[in-house]
Amino acid sequence: MPLVRGDGLKQALTDFLMEESMDAYMIHAGSTTDSDLYYLTRFLAHDPLLYLHTVEKDLVLVSTLEAGRAQKQADVDEIVTTERYNLSERIKRGVPVAEAYVEVIKELLHDTLNRKSVVKIAVPQNFEVYLADRLREDREIIPTISPLKAARARKRRDEIALIRDAERNAEQALGLAEETLKQSTVRGSRLYFNDEILTSEKLRSIIDMNLLSKGYETEATIVAGGTQSAEPHNIGSGPLEPDKPIVIDIFPRHKTNRYHADFTRTFVRGRPDPEVREMHNAVLDAQEKAIETIRPGITGSEVHETVTRVLEAHGYESGDEGFIHSTGHGVGLDIHEPPSLSESGEPLDSGNVITIEPGLYYQKIGGVRIEDLVVVTENGCRNLTTYHKELKIEERR
Amino acid sequence: MPLVRGDGLKQALTDFLMEESMDAYMIHAGSTTDSDLYYLTRFLAHDPLLYLHTVEKDLVLVSTLEAGRAQKQADVDEIVTTERYNLSERIKRGVPVAEAYVEVIKELLHDTLNRKSVVKIAVPQNFEVYLADRLREDREIIPTISPLKAARARKRRDEIALIRDAERNAEQALGLAEETLKQSTVRGSRLYFNDEILTSEKLRSIIDMNLLSKGYETEATIVAGGTQSAEPHNIGSGPLEPDKPIVIDIFPRHKTNRYHADFTRTFVRGRPDPEVREMHNAVLDAQEKAIETIRPGITGSEVHETVTRVLEAHGYESGDEGFIHSTGHGVGLDIHEPPSLSESGEPLDSGNVITIEPGLYYQKIGGVRIEDLVVVTENGCRNLTTYHKELKIEERR
Repeated sequence: MPLVRGDGLKQALTDFLMEESMDAYMIHAGSTTDSDLYYLTRFLAHDPLLYLHTVEKDLVLVSTLEAGRAQKQADVDEIVTTERYNLSERIKRGVPVAEAYVEVIKELLHDTLNRKSVVKIAVPQNFEVYLADRLREDREIIPTISPLKAARARKRRDEIALIRDAERNAEQALGLAEETLKQSTVRGSRLYFNDEILTSEKLRSIIDMNLLSKGYETEATIVAGGTQSAEPHNIGSGPLEPDKPIVIDIFPRHKTNRYHADFTRTFVRGRPDPEVREMHNAVLDAQEKAIETIRPGITGSEVHETVTRVLEAHGYESGDEGFIHSTGHGVGLDIHEPPSLSESGEPLDSGNVITIEPGLYYQKIGGVRIEDLVVVTENGCRNLTTYHKELKIEERR
Repeated sequence: MPLVRGDGLKQALTDFLMEESMDAYMIHAGSTTDSDLYYLTRFLAHDPLLYLHTVEKDLVLVSTLEAGRAQKQADVDEIVTTERYNLSERIKRGVPVAEAYVEVIKELLHDTLNRKSVVKIAVPQNFEVYLADRLREDREIIPTISPLKAARARKRRDEIALIRDAERNAEQALGLAEETLKQSTVRGSRLYFNDEILTSEKLRSIIDMNLLSKGYETEATIVAGGTQSAEPHNIGSGPLEPDKPIVIDIFPRHKTNRYHADFTRTFVRGRPDPEVREMHNAVLDAQEKAIETIRPGITGSEVHETVTRVLEAHGYESGDEGFIHSTGHGVGLDIHEPPSLSESGEPLDSGNVITIEPGLYYQKIGGVRIEDLVVVTENGCRNLTTYHKELKIEERR
């Protein structure tokens, strides 16, 4: 993936160390779950590894098992193996693994940093407490809001292109799902596709298989019908009903380049109840007005307030029901990342890729959500989502 | 999933609190990545939530967004929303999010624990340092080796059944891959399937699509050919060659019940080089002798030593090349979990589900790995893997 490299981020890290008078920045995590680490190293590993960044260089500490692969793939100045500090020998001598690993890290820090009488090491807030406690025996370990998160929130063109590709593929997968709904027939309170009862599981499988065939994994595609859709993160199960809302929320991640997309539509196959139609109108209105406000400088909380206000104007007050989540979030290597479009939302910046996803949820009725993915531009935003926003789906005859 | 409930584990946690004179056990994580949390709550959530366990009760702290779903799905005594402690209001008043969240947790702890003058809270070693530091302003936060990991390592029958199902499906997927190799034709240094060059990507896609159609996700199926297979975690890319080793390592996870399987075979389509054939013989011999030793009470390090010794007897010394990983690991909700079959391996116990996966790796030759998944029984072990271990694959004519 030569397009996307960690260099810009590494400069951001170095700047941070200088500004905050820190001597190093350290991460301990698996890069399949820690996107900062993946962004910095371009090295994908499930098991935890240590990353250390000073103003002079950066390095990863890995097992022998990963050394060959790291040598070729990891975008860092130095690969250090745990065997350089005799991890196996320590364990063979009877030192407990966790203890032996701490000893190895302490020696690595000593070698890398001590000559400069280093004391202050910044770590992300989610750094593990056990390791922090042990390293604090000799050094200062200072949890910080990751300086990388802010840097990652401003996407480069190549990153935006990957996210747009993911969004396009998500739209194509939704196209298959919509077509399946169209080709289904209504019998009583059930939908039938190819003479089988159409379920959330079946529709999700159509979406997920299509995306995997193009290289995307899907953690939890939502196909939630009827009252299940009243819970925004209920992925849905069982038969889908005609005339009831069906919320379909697709957020694929590319298995290789690791970028996500995210978007949602709400459909009714048949005749929507008037209250669902009104909810849909209100949510659509709120989304359109929110998108109109997007530009660099406006805060996420202002956008969120616009949505709340429009929904209230339509008669929907928020509380335990109604609009019970934030207006949106950044999307990139993580599915939920800064900036946040919520009560705490900070100013937006060009290059932010964010969802705009108002929704309304009532236990007795169900939910309606419409979600687009947009890029903040110099003077507004560009919508990466092109899918229609019709609620009602007609049978294809 | 009524078969698998957290009750046994909860008792283990309560016992732990009593024995260690702790007042509570606390986890803060997303349950999609923290299997302890998922095991305890049976509630699958991507975004972090707080779990608190005392001898009287357990609870989760979630956002309004997750409250409805948690109410139905989470196997805990109490669901508390962040709004009970006015998270939104605090943020609206201008309190930074992280700070407001800490305030909410402190009030929750005060309500839940203070009446008993609670001071000692155990947390897993990977608990986040920022939150630990902030809570330490009022309480003792004590990182502990998770008491749940040991409990989770002894699988119940229903868990073993789910893992065996996953292993069977992984074997069926490998069957498709092997059949594809058999039906491929050799032209020069390439394999062709349906007149297209057969690549790692193609074979992986066949495996992954088959598994997804049965409800399994695959994080990083390995199909590594030639010298790529010398790196145990290289997933492989590009054309697969005849006469060279192809390591195929499949570790699916069921998307709903969350259990994994894990197994590996090494194939050569055509004529293996003598050195690869010898490596395969040695690895197979080491695996068989290791499996013979498995019984409750033997330590993981003894099993690992057996493998090392057998490989040495075949002339393979370990170092930067050769046998560069452990003999095996537990498999369950996590793909790597206790017990470990390595230098630090502790005694095995009946109910452990473990891989036995010796391998040999040389940068100039490639790798050979054979991996089975076995259950430790009262007096030995039962192999959950039935797939043949032939190295050489013949063309199907």
